[in-house]
Amino acid sequence: MKNIAINAVDAKNKLMSIETEAKNRALLAVADALEANKNAIFEANKRDLEESRIFVENGEISTSTFARLKLDENKMRDMIQGIRNVAKLEDPVGKVLLKRELDEGLTLTKISCPIGVIGVIFEARPDVIVQISALAIKSGNAVILKGGKESSHTNTKIFEVITNALKSVQFPENTINLLFSRDEVKEMLEMDEYIDLIIPRGSNELVKYIQENTKIPVLGHASGVCNIYVDKDANPEKAMKICVDAKCQYPSACNSVENILIHKDFPHTDDIKNALIENGVEIVEKADFSTEFGEKIVNIAAISDTEEAIEIINKCGSHHTDCIITEDAAIADEFLARVDSAGVYHNCSTRFADGFRYGFGAEVGISTNKTHARGPVGLEGLTIYKYILTGNGHIVADYSEGKATFKHKDLPFDGGANSGATASK
Amino acid sequence: MKNIAINAVDAKNKLMSIETEAKNRALLAVADALEANKNAIFEANKRDLEESRIFVENGEISTSTFARLKLDENKMRDMIQGIRNVAKLEDPVGKVLLKRELDEGLTLTKISCPIGVIGVIFEARPDVIVQISALAIKSGNAVILKGGKESSHTNTKIFEVITNALKSVQFPENTINLLFSRDEVKEMLEMDEYIDLIIPRGSNELVKYIQENTKIPVLGHASGVCNIYVDKDANPEKAMKICVDAKCQYPSACNSVENILIHKDFPHTDDIKNALIENGVEIVEKADFSTEFGEKIVNIAAISDTEEAIEIINKCGSHHTDCIITEDAAIADEFLARVDSAGVYHNCSTRFADGFRYGFGAEVGISTNKTHARGPVGLEGLTIYKYILTGNGHIVADYSEGKATFKHKDLPFDGGANSGATASK
Repeated sequence: MKNIAINAVDAKNKLMSIETEAKNRALLAVADALEANKNAIFEANKRDLEESRIFVENGEISTSTFARLKLDENKMRDMIQGIRNVAKLEDPVGKVLLKRELDEGLTLTKISCPIGVIGVIFEARPDVIVQISALAIKSGNAVILKGGKESSHTNTKIFEVITNALKSVQFPENTINLLFSRDEVKEMLEMDEYIDLIIPRGSNELVKYIQENTKIPVLGHASGVCNIYVDKDANPEKAMKICVDAKCQYPSACNSVENILIHKDFPHTDDIKNALIENGVEIVEKADFSTEFGEKIVNIAAISDTEEAIEIINKCGSHHTDCIITEDAAIADEFLARVDSAGVYHNCSTRFADGFRYGFGAEVGISTNKTHARGPVGLEGLTIYKYILTGNGHIVADYSEGKATFKHKDLPFDGGANSGATASK
Repeated sequence: MKNIAINAVDAKNKLMSIETEAKNRALLAVADALEANKNAIFEANKRDLEESRIFVENGEISTSTFARLKLDENKMRDMIQGIRNVAKLEDPVGKVLLKRELDEGLTLTKISCPIGVIGVIFEARPDVIVQISALAIKSGNAVILKGGKESSHTNTKIFEVITNALKSVQFPENTINLLFSRDEVKEMLEMDEYIDLIIPRGSNELVKYIQENTKIPVLGHASGVCNIYVDKDANPEKAMKICVDAKCQYPSACNSVENILIHKDFPHTDDIKNALIENGVEIVEKADFSTEFGEKIVNIAAISDTEEAIEIINKCGSHHTDCIITEDAAIADEFLARVDSAGVYHNCSTRFADGFRYGFGAEVGISTNKTHARGPVGLEGLTIYKYILTGNGHIVADYSEGKATFKHKDLPFDGGANSGATASK
C-alpha cells in the first residue's frame, strides 16, 4: 500500500507539466483499448456476478448494489463514449486566473494546476473506475482507486487494460493505481502524507464512515435531504408538476425531494397530495425534516411562512438542493439569498442538480462541503491553483525600506488553458 | 460553548443576505469605537502584560510571544486603519462566477457567498481579533474567536467594543463571538456540526495540534520550509541579493528561505556564502532539507541539476514558496511548472509571499492546503459559491424522456459583487 502511494506521488510529480495533447491522446488510447478488450471485461464481470450472489444471499450487499455491478453492452458503450467526451472538454489545468504587475518587472500569475494524488473509494459500479480515471488523466492528477470485493475481477481487468493503454502512449506509469480488496480502506484513510483528496462514491454509510475517519479532505455528500417550499403565491400547476418530478423521476437519487413544505394559506395543497398519490407516492406528515427516504415516500408539512421554511431548511436539510415555488419575485429572492445550500432553485425541479444537466460534461460527484467545491463537481473541482512570481532580482527589503513601492496593476489575460505549460511564457 | 455556536449559526443565517453598505457601515462603526475606547483597551493590555510576566518566567510563553502581546499607539493606529481599508475593498460576496442558460427560461447562476461559521484560534497578538473580525464582517461570515489566556483582558475589552459598535448600527448580533480562556480549544475542534472552517493563527505547534485534532477543514500552514535553487546559469548578483533578502529580511517569517540548493557548476557559490556570512547568517551544510530554522541559519547544498532541485523541493519542502534563480528561461519554465508549491518564483525573493504584497488588501493567513485556498489568502478564501437555478416549472422528466433538450448556452455577466443580493434580479 505504501509503495502504491509513493508511486502515485511520483506520477503526480510527472503529471504537473504534462501537455493537453498528451492527455487527450492517452484518453483516446484508453477508449480504444476498452473497445478492443470488451469481451474479456464482460467475462471478468460475469465471474463477479456469479461470485457475488453469495454476498446478496448473506445480506452483505443489497440487491440494488448487485444490480449496479452488471456491465452490459449499453453501459460499456456509454463508458467509452464518456472517455471520448472528456477528451473533448477544455483542459482545466494551466488556466490563468489572475495576472498582476506588482511592480516593474515583477509579475504575479495565478494559474490552475492539478491537486496531486486523489483517493477514490467506490462500491459495486465498475464504471466508476473508468469515469474517474478519465477525469484524473484530463486534470493531471494521480489516483488511487479502491473498489469493493464484489467487483474485483472486473476492476482488475479494466485496470489492466487502462494501464497497458497508458504505457502504449508513454503516459506516466502509476497515474492510475488500484488497491485490491485485501487492502483495507482504513489504511488509505490514514495516508494524509500522500493523498490530497478523497472522493467516496457509494452509500451514505460509506461516505459517513470515510468523513469520520480521515484527516484528508473528503469531497462528497453523505445525505441528500432536499426540500421544496410551496409558497402561498405558487402557481398550482407548476407546484404539482415540480413536486411529482422531484419525488418520482428517480426517487433514490440524492437530489430527489424528501420534504414538501406548504404555506398554510396555499389553496391547492390537496391537489399536490393527490398528484403525488396518483404517482404512487406515500405521504407522511410531521416527520423530522431530516430523513432521507430514498424511495417514493415524502413528508408534507403545512407551515406559517417563508421565514419558517428558510429556518427548517437551513436547520434540518443537508444543504444539497432546495427549491421555492412562487410567483412572488421578492419572496423568491429572499429565499435564494438566505437558503444556505449548494443549489437553491426557483420554480424548477431539484432533480436538475447534476453535473451533466449543468453542462459540465463530466462529473466527479456532488459536494455539500462548504470549502473548495460545492454542488455538482466537474473537472474544475480536481484543480487548485498556484502563484507564479517572476522578477529580475527583486527583493522585499527595497519595499520595506521605502526604496520601491508596489504598483499592483492588474494586467489583461485570456484565461484559457495553455497546454499545461507555465504562465511565464 | 454550544450556546455560542448556536448563536453563531443564527448570525450566519442572517449574514447570508446582508448588503455591502451595511457591512461597510459596521466596519466604520467598529473603527470609530476602537478609536474612542483606545485608552480602556490600553489599560486592559497593561493588565495582561503584568499578569503574563509569570507565564514568561515559568516558561509557559516565550519572550517573543510576550513581545507580540503589547499594544501601543502605533499598533492601534494600524489596526484601526486596517479596518477602514477592509471597508474599501470590493465585496467578495455576490460575485457572479458563471451564468448559463440550460434551456429557454432555465438559467443557472454560480454566485459567491459566505462560508458560514469560522473558528479562529490565536495566540498572544490581540490585533488578530480586530483583523479577523473585520474580514468576517466584510465577507458575511460569523466567527468564533478563541485567544490565549495571556491576552484575555485585552481580548475581552476589544470584543466588548466591537459588539457594542455592531449593536449601534443594527448589525446581526453574534456575528463576532469570543470564547474565554476557560473554554477548551478541544471543544471547539469537535464542533464540526456548527463550524465550517478553522483558521489557526499561532505557532507551528498550535497549527499542527489543530490539524491533527479536528474534522473541520483547517486553513493555514504548519511549517514554512522555503527553498531557493541557484541554477548554474544564475546571475551571481541577483543570486546574492535574493538569498540575503530571503534569509535576513525577517528570518522568523514562514516565507524566509531555509535551504539554498546550488548547482555544482555555478561558479560563484563562495560569493553567496560570503554575502550571507557578512549579514550574520550561520551556514550549515547537508541538513535534512526539512528543518525550519526560523532564525539566521541556512542550509546550503551543492546539487547536480535542476531535476535534483525539483525532486528535493517536492519531497522535503513544505510546498509553501520556492524559487529558482537562473537566466535560462527554459529551465525556469520547467521549474515553475513542476514544483508543486503554493508559490513558485523566478528571480525574486521568497519573502514576497504575502497577501499585502500580492495586492489583496487584507490577509487571513497563508495556506499550504491543496484544496480551497492556497498561498496568501484574502477575503476570497472566506467565500464559497452556490448555484442558483431559476425556471418556470421546468422538470427533469421532459429532458430524460426526450421532450426537451439542454441548450447549455453561456450568458455574459459582469462578475461584480451585487451587494449581497441574489443573482436572479
